[in-house]
Order: sequence, then structure tokens, then C-alpha cells
Amino acid sequence: MEFKITKSDIEIAHESIHNHIHKTPILTSESINKILGCEVFFKCENFQKIGAFKARGGLNAVLSLPEEVRKRGVVTHSSGNHAQAIAMAAKVCNTPAYIVMPSTAPSVKKDAVAGYGAEITFCEPTQKAREENAESIQKETGATFISPYNDYKVIEGQATSAKEIFEVHADLDAIFVPVGGGGLLAGTALAAHYLSPHTKVFAGEPANADDAYDSFKAGKIIKKPQPKSIADGLLTGVGDKNFEIIKALVSDIFTVSEDEIIGSMKLVWERMKIIIEPSSAVPIAALLKHKEHFKNKKIGLIISGGNIDLAKLPF
Amino acid sequence: MEFKITKSDIEIAHESIHNHIHKTPILTSESINKILGCEVFFKCENFQKIGAFKARGGLNAVLSLPEEVRKRGVVTHSSGNHAQAIAMAAKVCNTPAYIVMPSTAPSVKKDAVAGYGAEITFCEPTQKAREENAESIQKETGATFISPYNDYKVIEGQATSAKEIFEVHADLDAIFVPVGGGGLLAGTALAAHYLSPHTKVFAGEPANADDAYDSFKAGKIIKKPQPKSIADGLLTGVGDKNFEIIKALVSDIFTVSEDEIIGSMKLVWERMKIIIEPSSAVPIAALLKHKEHFKNKKIGLIISGGNIDLAKLPF
Repeated sequence: MEFKITKSDIEIAHESIHNHIHKTPILTSESINKILGCEVFFKCENFQKIGAFKARGGLNAVLSLPEEVRKRGVVTHSSGNHAQAIAMAAKVCNTPAYIVMPSTAPSVKKDAVAGYGAEITFCEPTQKAREENAESIQKETGATFISPYNDYKVIEGQATSAKEIFEVHADLDAIFVPVGGGGLLAGTALAAHYLSPHTKVFAGEPANADDAYDSFKAGKIIKKPQPKSIADGLLTGVGDKNFEIIKALVSDIFTVSEDEIIGSMKLVWERMKIIIEPSSAVPIAALLKHKEHFKNKKIGLIISGGNIDLAKLPF
Repeated sequence: MEFKITKSDIEIAHESIHNHIHKTPILTSESINKILGCEVFFKCENFQKIGAFKARGGLNAVLSLPEEVRKRGVVTHSSGNHAQAIAMAAKVCNTPAYIVMPSTAPSVKKDAVAGYGAEITFCEPTQKAREENAESIQKETGATFISPYNDYKVIEGQATSAKEIFEVHADLDAIFVPVGGGGLLAGTALAAHYLSPHTKVFAGEPANADDAYDSFKAGKIIKKPQPKSIADGLLTGVGDKNFEIIKALVSDIFTVSEDEIIGSMKLVWERMKIIIEPSSAVPIAALLKHKEHFKNKKIGLIISGGNIDLAKLPF
């Protein structure tokens, strides 16, 4: 099967963004290996700029725009990490960023976006209001809209995290990531396909937001209304560009309960002394749940981010 | 002035323990540097074995015992990180560890000590009960008592953390650590004295447990009854062996409020995505409070540990 994104596209993306991102560390924990019965290499995107892997895709998307287009600015709507990623990328490129945020977004996230010099438009906290506002800004300014995940340049950028793992660990049996919109999963699957084809790709998804799981099993996109999970980075539905890649290259998707997510998050906080957001705990919970299938294997696992409101912890 | 601990003692200690400890990473944060107005290199002992720098001193103390003495075991009393350090060190040396713990110690700490195979004796949560129990075990078994801080071998071990910083950063203007019993501060001061004499040594102490501050200013040990601070690793009074070194080699001790400790802890959790215990936030709070004096300087700072009960967070 041929994909829209080639091996060389991923390499070019990495070359393009690598001066603007952190080469995040890969950590291990003896005690967590003992609990899981396998050897896990945690790629820590919680230490990435903006505290999440989304810095990679956002940067690649903005850097890939032709000079003439880029100078008119970029626009997106997001309440979370993608907003910060685009604001940061626009700052790096010295171009305007217009970010539509729901008025209900936590002030720490508003402040972070504003800190990168982005122009924020607040709107009602509905998908419709977000899209309409972004569209009207797009028309008014000529800025380019950048989707949080359903965009090939974003997917290429997200693929670079797995690429950095494979450069250090050529012998992984499997790699685990969370799935929400599917940008990280599609990027990781392509990176494995081209750079480490013996590595199987698995995803974890909250059972309370399991549209990717259902879609994967059905072989076609199935939408779910109003998912609700503590893993707030994984509530978006899987994008069609991502799904084509996921369907072709991913070995399996596992769902996990809210309690399993919270338990795995606590495990990592306590044993590894690093802060991971609930979405990042999802693939760990999935691995823990199916550990019998991965006994003594070598596993890569992407910790997607570390942005969490400390005033609202689940423990 | 001559010290009981020589440069060579510190080098031998490092040689002796280095196979049993983690060479902990040194992290930096652009956003925290911006806030502090200086360049800070955080030595992350929260990623050390047992989650704290005490692994270093405990190991050196147990490894330094003559074979004949060591095989009779080691004994200590502690509710915290020192208990785990001695239990871990005894396991490494394949010798019995007898740990006296107050019955009120959190079960996570009891479990961790038991996990290293140590024999735990529970006692009333008073200093007197702890000491009496340890003494009676010592008499009964012939085990050697190891103080949490007032012990030259422990101090030598703690000195190795600063030694690892100076090996990478030869040009630090200052180094900050917390002070409780004074083992880490005395060890750090000796390491700077021998290995990086142009680096000034500073400590942070909770204002609510400021016996080291008062002693430092008075030039003699002043005891304070019943200190109470969220920085639970810093409640012990400074030891006389440590104080002689501190008095001679430390530039200053700064005190900080409980709110300043909590604020600095939150800052590191949010910006660096790493878990530090309240005691580790104390030198950061001290640096933040006196940042005008350290403008544009290069500063080393030891993050002493990351052991905290997630069910009892202050935010």
C-alpha cells in the first residue's frame, strides 16, 4: 500500500523542526518494568516545548507553508495543547497566530497561548462556535487554518517522536501511543512502517471515548457523540486522513476504564517522579491490562504530554 | 582549616557507590531561568534510587563498614528517606537491616522499606521511643547504628551529588541545597571546597524550622523544639559534625515561608513536569526570594527528592 506521506517526508519534517524542539529523553523505570513484566522505554514528550508532542506537528505545519502564505498568519481553534503548539510555531516563524479558544478554557492555558504573542478570540464552548469563529478569521485575514490532527504536515511532525525512539532503540517489539484524533498514532505507525518495520504499533483509548476503537474494528469511521473522559486530550473523533493510515498499519487498539487511566497515571507519578497528563496514562493502562501478551518484550511508549491542572487532580 | 573529610575521601566514596546509584540527570528550564533571572542547573536526585539523595550517604556508610562489622547488620530509626536508604544499602551489601519506624509513618514508606527486605520495628512516634528501640536492637544484634546525617561516611556520600554537578559544570557561581540535619549541605560545601572553590554555597531552610539559620548566625548550635513545616525532610536539628563544616564553608542560609515553599514546588511541577517533594522546593524558594543577588549567575541546585504522598498535596 502506498501512503501520501513518504519516508522522506518524515525525514524532511524532522530536519525542518529539530532546531526548534527538544530531543526529549527516553526514560526507563526498573520498578515499572517489574510490574509490567517487560522492558519499557518511555519517550517523554511531557518535557517537550509547550509540554506536549503537539509542538512537533504544529511546527512542521507552519514551517511547511510557502513564505507568501505563511506571512498572512495561521489560525486554529483549540482549548488545549494544539493552541499552544500553533502559537509557539507562529512565534518561531515570526507570523501572526489567531487562536479561537472556548471562553471556558482554563486561564493557565489562555495565559500560555497569550504568552507566545498569539491573538486570542474567545467563543462559546461549542464545536460550531469554534469552527465559525475560525472560519470568519480565516476569511478576514487570509490566515491558513491548521487542523489539530487531520493534516498530513501535522502527522509528519508527530511521526518524528517515534523516529527519535527508533534511532536509539532499533530492536523494539512494539510501540504504544494514545489515540484521540489520531495524529500521533498515524505518525507513529508511518514511522514504524518506514524505519522499524518489525515493530508492531498499538494504541490505548479511553473506553469512554472509544470511537477509534469502534472504527478500527468496523473498518470505517464511526462517530460517537459527546465522549467524556479524564483523558481530555483524547476526546476528539479520529480524522479520515489519520484513519486510512491507522487501518492499514496499526496492530490493535485497546480500551481502558477511567479508573485504569487514573491508576496508571498515579503509578508513573509515584515511581518515575514525572508529571504526565491523563491522556499519557492511557497507553500505559492498556499495556498493563494486556501485559501477558507482551511478556519480556521490548516496548517503546510515547508519553504524549504533561499539561494538567494541579488544582483538579484525581487523587 | 582542616576537615575530617578529605578530597580523597569524597573520591573514594564516589568510586565505592557509583555502581549502585543513578548518575542523576541535570535539567534546565528556560521558563524558570526567565523567572529567576539566572541560569539554574537542577541536579535531579528525585530520580535517584529510593527517590532521594539519601541513597548516596546510606550506601557509603554501609559499604564503608569492615566486613566483620557489616555482616552483623545495620540499624537506624527514620520515618522517611533515610529508612529506605539504609534498607536499600543493606540489600546491596546482603546484610540485615533493622529499621525502627514510628507506627504513624505512611504505609507507602513502610511498604518501600519492607520491599528491600528490612526488618521493621514499629514504635511510638517520639524521638525517645525511636532512639530506645534502635539502641536495644543494636545491643541485641550487634548491628551498627547509622545516623541519618551526623556521620562522616554519610556526609561523604551526600557530597557525591555536588561532585557530579561540578564534573559537568566547572563554572558555577553558586550552588543551592536545602538544610535539615545538614548532611547534604555539609557534603556539598566540602565538594565545592575541594572541587570548585570559586563556587559559593547557599542553603534554604523553612522559616518554621530555622535552627540551622539561627545556629549559623550565632556561630553555635541552637536547638528549636517541635518545628513544623510542609518540608518534612527538613525538621531534624542540624548535627554537630555537619555544623562545623557548614560554619566554615557556607556563604549564607536563607529562610522561606510555607507559602513560598508551596509556590516554588508548584512552579517546578508545572514548568518542568517533574515531581519534587516540598523539601526540594526550599532552596528554589530561597533563590527566588533573593534573585536580585544572583542576576545572570550560573547556579547549581540539588533537587533532594521526589517522595510525596499524592493524597495530601498542598494545591
